[in-house]
Amino acid sequence: MKVYLAGPDVFLPDAIDVGRRKVELCARHGLTGLYPLDNVIDLAAADASLQIYRGNEAMMNEADAIIANLTPFRGPGADAGTVYELGYMAARAKLCLGYSNDPSLYAERVARIAELKTRDGRLIDAQGLTVENFGLADNLMMIHALDLYGCPLVVPRQAAEDIWHDLTSFEACVRLAAKRLTAPPALS
Amino acid sequence: MKVYLAGPDVFLPDAIDVGRRKVELCARHGLTGLYPLDNVIDLAAADASLQIYRGNEAMMNEADAIIANLTPFRGPGADAGTVYELGYMAARAKLCLGYSNDPSLYAERVARIAELKTRDGRLIDAQGLTVENFGLADNLMMIHALDLYGCPLVVPRQAAEDIWHDLTSFEACVRLAAKRLTAPPALS
Repeated sequence: MKVYLAGPDVFLPDAIDVGRRKVELCARHGLTGLYPLDNVIDLAAADASLQIYRGNEAMMNEADAIIANLTPFRGPGADAGTVYELGYMAARAKLCLGYSNDPSLYAERVARIAELKTRDGRLIDAQGLTVENFGLADNLMMIHALDLYGCPLVVPRQAAEDIWHDLTSFEACVRLAAKRLTAPPALS
Repeated sequence: MKVYLAGPDVFLPDAIDVGRRKVELCARHGLTGLYPLDNVIDLAAADASLQIYRGNEAMMNEADAIIANLTPFRGPGADAGTVYELGYMAARAKLCLGYSNDPSLYAERVARIAELKTRDGRLIDAQGLTVENFGLADNLMMIHALDLYGCPLVVPRQAAEDIWHDLTSFEACVRLAAKRLTAPPALS
């Protein structure tokens, strides 16, 4: 069974090595990890970004599941490309798993970067825009997609010391995926 | 034909009014706009956020197209919920349109909030994470989803003065959607 490995890991200085570690962890649990950087792309080509899109989409279509790294990236929430891919896989009825190496709540992270107020009992930011405050780790669309189409978001008790390299929560997702994808069919 | 109206508009102080204006613009072009806040949700319920998810998903399943407001929200890129929904609709082969009231490039916006450097010829941020620099307005997954499944991202020449209320680019998307959704079938 194949698992698409989504996440901003591809932006790390050691992106290829992190992907290799993730694929190895998948193999250890009987799964085949598909990592975006395994697609061969000519980065000097004028249509390099379109090649990347097509490669990622082909991998998603081939995969039975997604494990999305939803660790906050360059702002209070998850990486946009990863979120797009989670929506794509949920719509295709693939098994959806995700983790974040930061267990804080979305509203807590927004409060760290801006002073929050309330309006009509709702939390708002400096621009007057409502801050989602349902006690969730990120935007409700992602969090509930995981609840409905896979397993609840996996988070550590405390933020991982190295949020970009700690694969403990990732491996927990791999275990969950292996259990769901390789389980014998239930007796009717 | 029905169009799902995705965007962080739902977080505005006058969210209901903005939705009404969007639905009216759709009607003027012969389309039915489906706006998330038209779902009746009991916000005091323990499962309010799950009700919102289910309501949005039902609207997406009912719609023939999505018009996504991808104006940067609380950071350098688009709102996560909207991005999730764009991925969902692309995977369901619905017509995908989107606009941003800020025509700047993703890398330009990241450069506004952090000093960028280069590593091996690639742009990196203060954390050492690669900054996508393909001359695109946002993450390539969203931008190319629009290219492949609808129309290229609609942006104004200059940033809209009121980025949360200017509906010029939105209306351009409505026109494109109307043309595509209500066009007579091509002669074979």
